[in-house]
Amino acid sequence: MATISDIGVAAAINILSAFAFFLAFAILRIQPVNDRVYFPKWYLKGLRSSPLVNGAFVGKFVNLDFRSYARFLSWMPAALQMPEPELIDHAGLDSAVYLRIYLLGLKIFVPIAIIAFTIMVPVNWTNNTLEHSGLTYSGIDKLSISNIPTASHRFWTHLVMAYAFTFWTCYMLKREYEIVAAMRLYFLASEQQRPDQFTVLVRNVPPDRDESVSEFVEHFFLVNHPDHYLSHQTGFLGLWGNSVDAIDFYTCKVERLSRDISAEREKVTNNSKSILPAAFVSFKTRWGAAVCAQTQQSRNPTMWLTEWAPEPRDVYWENLAIPFVFLAIRRLIAAVSFFFLTFFFMIPIAIVQSLANIESIEKALPFLKHIIELKFIKSLIQGFLPGIALKIFLLFLPTILMIMSKFEGFISLSALERRSASRYYFFQFINVFLGSIITGTAFQQLNSFIHQSTNQIPKTIGVSIPMKATFFITYIMVDGWAGVAAEILRLKPLIIYHLKNFFLVKTEKDREEAMDPGTIGFNTGEPQIQLYFLLGLVYAVVTPILLPFIIVFFGLAYVVYRHQIINVYNQEYESAAAFWPDVHVRIIAALIVSQLLLMGLLSTKEAAQSTPLLITLPVLTIWFHRFCKGRYEPAFIRYPLQEAMMKDTLERTREVNLNLKGFLQNAYIHPVFKSADDSDSDIAMEEWEQEPALIATKRSSKRATPMPSKHSRSSLSLPEVNNECSKP
Amino acid sequence: MATISDIGVAAAINILSAFAFFLAFAILRIQPVNDRVYFPKWYLKGLRSSPLVNGAFVGKFVNLDFRSYARFLSWMPAALQMPEPELIDHAGLDSAVYLRIYLLGLKIFVPIAIIAFTIMVPVNWTNNTLEHSGLTYSGIDKLSISNIPTASHRFWTHLVMAYAFTFWTCYMLKREYEIVAAMRLYFLASEQQRPDQFTVLVRNVPPDRDESVSEFVEHFFLVNHPDHYLSHQTGFLGLWGNSVDAIDFYTCKVERLSRDISAEREKVTNNSKSILPAAFVSFKTRWGAAVCAQTQQSRNPTMWLTEWAPEPRDVYWENLAIPFVFLAIRRLIAAVSFFFLTFFFMIPIAIVQSLANIESIEKALPFLKHIIELKFIKSLIQGFLPGIALKIFLLFLPTILMIMSKFEGFISLSALERRSASRYYFFQFINVFLGSIITGTAFQQLNSFIHQSTNQIPKTIGVSIPMKATFFITYIMVDGWAGVAAEILRLKPLIIYHLKNFFLVKTEKDREEAMDPGTIGFNTGEPQIQLYFLLGLVYAVVTPILLPFIIVFFGLAYVVYRHQIINVYNQEYESAAAFWPDVHVRIIAALIVSQLLLMGLLSTKEAAQSTPLLITLPVLTIWFHRFCKGRYEPAFIRYPLQEAMMKDTLERTREVNLNLKGFLQNAYIHPVFKSADDSDSDIAMEEWEQEPALIATKRSSKRATPMPSKHSRSSLSLPEVNNECSKP
Repeated sequence: MATISDIGVAAAINILSAFAFFLAFAILRIQPVNDRVYFPKWYLKGLRSSPLVNGAFVGKFVNLDFRSYARFLSWMPAALQMPEPELIDHAGLDSAVYLRIYLLGLKIFVPIAIIAFTIMVPVNWTNNTLEHSGLTYSGIDKLSISNIPTASHRFWTHLVMAYAFTFWTCYMLKREYEIVAAMRLYFLASEQQRPDQFTVLVRNVPPDRDESVSEFVEHFFLVNHPDHYLSHQTGFLGLWGNSVDAIDFYTCKVERLSRDISAEREKVTNNSKSILPAAFVSFKTRWGAAVCAQTQQSRNPTMWLTEWAPEPRDVYWENLAIPFVFLAIRRLIAAVSFFFLTFFFMIPIAIVQSLANIESIEKALPFLKHIIELKFIKSLIQGFLPGIALKIFLLFLPTILMIMSKFEGFISLSALERRSASRYYFFQFINVFLGSIITGTAFQQLNSFIHQSTNQIPKTIGVSIPMKATFFITYIMVDGWAGVAAEILRLKPLIIYHLKNFFLVKTEKDREEAMDPGTIGFNTGEPQIQLYFLLGLVYAVVTPILLPFIIVFFGLAYVVYRHQIINVYNQEYESAAAFWPDVHVRIIAALIVSQLLLMGLLSTKEAAQSTPLLITLPVLTIWFHRFCKGRYEPAFIRYPLQEAMMKDTLERTREVNLNLKGFLQNAYIHPVFKSADDSDSDIAMEEWEQEPALIATKRSSKRATPMPSKHSRSSLSLPEVNNECSKP
Repeated sequence: MATISDIGVAAAINILSAFAFFLAFAILRIQPVNDRVYFPKWYLKGLRSSPLVNGAFVGKFVNLDFRSYARFLSWMPAALQMPEPELIDHAGLDSAVYLRIYLLGLKIFVPIAIIAFTIMVPVNWTNNTLEHSGLTYSGIDKLSISNIPTASHRFWTHLVMAYAFTFWTCYMLKREYEIVAAMRLYFLASEQQRPDQFTVLVRNVPPDRDESVSEFVEHFFLVNHPDHYLSHQTGFLGLWGNSVDAIDFYTCKVERLSRDISAEREKVTNNSKSILPAAFVSFKTRWGAAVCAQTQQSRNPTMWLTEWAPEPRDVYWENLAIPFVFLAIRRLIAAVSFFFLTFFFMIPIAIVQSLANIESIEKALPFLKHIIELKFIKSLIQGFLPGIALKIFLLFLPTILMIMSKFEGFISLSALERRSASRYYFFQFINVFLGSIITGTAFQQLNSFIHQSTNQIPKTIGVSIPMKATFFITYIMVDGWAGVAAEILRLKPLIIYHLKNFFLVKTEKDREEAMDPGTIGFNTGEPQIQLYFLLGLVYAVVTPILLPFIIVFFGLAYVVYRHQIINVYNQEYESAAAFWPDVHVRIIAALIVSQLLLMGLLSTKEAAQSTPLLITLPVLTIWFHRFCKGRYEPAFIRYPLQEAMMKDTLERTREVNLNLKGFLQNAYIHPVFKSADDSDSDIAMEEWEQEPALIATKRSSKRATPMPSKHSRSSLSLPEVNNECSKP
């Protein structure tokens, strides 16, 4: 067991390394040569075209203004200064709401920590249980619930605290849900026309003998939505372009290839087999689109499936054409494989580890034998090799989970990320949280849980909770403090940018592409935050000393990510905070876990009279969740008709000659086809925004993030070609 | 343990009593004096006005045609002769689909029984385990899985059978779901205009400072559904009529009261406080109504809640005005109280039992002392008294569950019955099924389950399953055979009818009201059937000898209930088989229970190698359920726009001068207000049906069941008065 001074040393180390990262960042960011690494967002927005410092030749690469070195933490207040509405304008609602998760952490845990330290810590401290127990213990344990004698009446304090913390958390959750829902509705309401407001994605168009998909879609909607249907675009199969690749292009066969491409395109466009049974159907009014998206179209509920079209950038084209039956089968396969991934991932890793020993390396690569046999190298390999397989696995886990989500058939990037995030959280809950508390692989845990009685499980875990406090404190400092500080340094993008810049970049355009602004990374970032919510809620009543460490994490991360969102990240899509219900439900889950574990812990302390009161807590929490779900979730899924009608009416009075058809014509085109018209459509977009408006808004998300999304590009073979070809 | 001959004796007794019931029924039903007890449906349809036999005075009461006594089972083929489409015409889709549940039982279990007897019974029989075990056993046990030695390879047969039975059941379930969904859609499509096709129920209309509820509703829908809104009716608070009661009426104060009533009515109509924040909004087209019912109207998803209006007869008026927050709280309270009801219902009963002993009766009613002290009476009381409290509780259980559902705030009778049915099934599952297998109260079971390991629970139950086979066989014969046969005799309605007829009836109208046709009673009937599905699926692999008994139940019940539906029951509403998803999910649940119990049983038989294969079964079954839910359930909840548009178009071409407003004007009026217009609206209804139609249908559900529903009547104080007053 770690003593308080051990923790102090660890804290000092981590604080120092965090400061080292900040210092390095402070120096690197003011070097003009790194400007595109640390301020890519501004370049993409077109508000910055060259480093701020201009002067001598050296000055182009190195900052010679020594005063700027002195204020090495100046970025922190700068990051906090931008007000929220401006932040939404600048980086989108997703990013702004994402930051609110950190704020929510502060709002929940600061009051909880204050109450815990004024009430619970004294109650715990003024006992002598541990001193008389003869067990080894640390100062931290004296502050925790472990110091209360069994069957003591002091446990009533913890019970009351559990209620107080639950009510406070629920209150904050409700308030936040309300605010975010309002922000979302306001955001959607205050926007200019967005193609997704008028467009519905129709999937599983049934095959028709006489008509092509396109004709069939048109006829169906002309008949069933006669007053509202405007136009449609059918999806194309995006899997044909093996004949063209990027390297050929760079060897200046531009012209021949361009001809190839347009021939290919024509072929695809005219070939009915390459047309997906899916369409983006546009309506004359938002009202018409809202109606179509929310209703069932045909008798067979697996045909003519309609839903809101995702934002054009957000579409994941590959999954548009999966029939309903296959979707169901894919879900089953994904669920089963995720179960095995979570509970049995140690098996393949153990196999790899047993194969990847020194003997087999020597056998496979005999010429390395002499080097390996060196004592130093040998011990190094023997020390590192077993861990490497696991490290590689954990490194690739988010990618594996993303592939799973893609396999499951979600049709937008935002949905893919949300699904991956929930799986990643579950994996972390089992393998990091439970795995650290009950040592052993997830499979061993599962096995022992199956063989344990239902009321024994919370006991087993609950009892271990106080003992693991110091471990988690260290974890928070390494992962949460130093890790977050390292994020701001962007070491990997920095190195890659300079390598590219040195070897590949020839034109300004190349340089722009060498920038890798990255994104928030909701699928990995949010589960990490959730782990801290879980730790905070579980330890709030048990070992409140953990809370300050978590509060520092939330505060630090808030500042760092706010800075990154303002200056670096470039979101690939805008889902208008569609992820909030997920965030909410995971905090609720953490709350329930903490209540069950407290119940288990107290029942071993012979405080059984508290059990009925403790059982009430999860029941109330679940009820609270259902209430919130009914009250706020619809705002994230549906689009109220009242709202739609209001916007439609407003628009009709304000823009009489609205050419909606022209606006929507090319909104949903597969990225491959879009490229040729990119410049035109950009111009069209600008025109839209310049039109007179009754309500002036600053929002310009289309211009702010004009790059096509990474995912839809990476899965196609032609991206570079097209981007280039579109240049005059 | 019962031997086969014991079972034989029990079977003989039950078959004899079933025959006795049938014989009594055969004699009673052909007596003219009982005609209104056994054929009320035909009277209500207006197709029968007096007993068939007319002749001498005696002939009016007793059947003197002795030939008719000879054919005492003639009603059975008669009941089976009516083809399904005609049955739907005659009794509605609900009844016809309800009968399909029995048929589904036959379709599932007949093939399973045949396979089990040809393959599994020989495999079980050709072992000597029980003979060598030294345990007492019966012939039934020799046919069951108990006769297989531990760790035998013969268990593979049972494993394969479990797969075969699961696949067969799922196949039949899917087929049936498909058929019922198609029947429902066809039924809805082939109907004439029904007010509920054009009407949406709007609840939680927010209060408005300037406008009355009625004005506000009109304005909201004129703005947000401008092209489709037609008219609306707001709900009235139905809780004022204490000033009038039925006995006064019969003392001929008709006129004064009539004046009172109309004054009362006027007062209520004009008093804004008695107007509910709920409205029935009618639309010009089915399309418009379908759109409004399926979409969210306002920003705040707890305001302007829209859903399909239930059929006018189906509305449960009392619950129309409950605000969203209270609904959520009521749900929580209902859930918690149902939990306590299920697991702790023995506690109050034990208290009542301890109070209701002879001593306390003597104390409370001292004048009875002499009678009670008689030895015969005393032993009778002592023998019966403890059971009476339990019996009374079980008798009132459906009513208690119905009150709970009403408290929860469902707004239609059909929803109330569905909810009660699912609770009743759960209660039976815990207290009859599990309660019989593991002796002890539900609370003791709960307690032992909490303290048992997760994999121990299926073992504990699974091991007891084969031992309880004979008990359940007896249960099936008493409850399923004799009980169903007793249903046809209608002893209680028979006695009550004759008592009323003798003491109260003065006019033909009185006589009509003395008839009590009753209904199917979905809230008690369906859970009973489900218990048989559960028993059949659980025992199919374990003790197949149970299957023939279940098949006899399904066959017998099918004939009896078909007869009752044709001749007796008068449904209070028509929900177009909205209950089928519930039926489906409960059979699925039974299937999963049977799989888990088999797994538990086999794991004690040292057939552990089968566990992975057995775990796969519930996973696949759950997946199958989710697939079916996605594929078929929408047909029971939503109304496809394509369908609506088709009917609208058809109607527009066929009836050019459609006065929809007049038709819908009085469709949704609180029963109290409706009475005065009853005769008019009936005439209006007839007119509708006489209009020329392109597609001729026989359906006439409005005329078939013109009585206002029992529930909405019983909760009001004025029904008799109004029914009478409406007569000229």
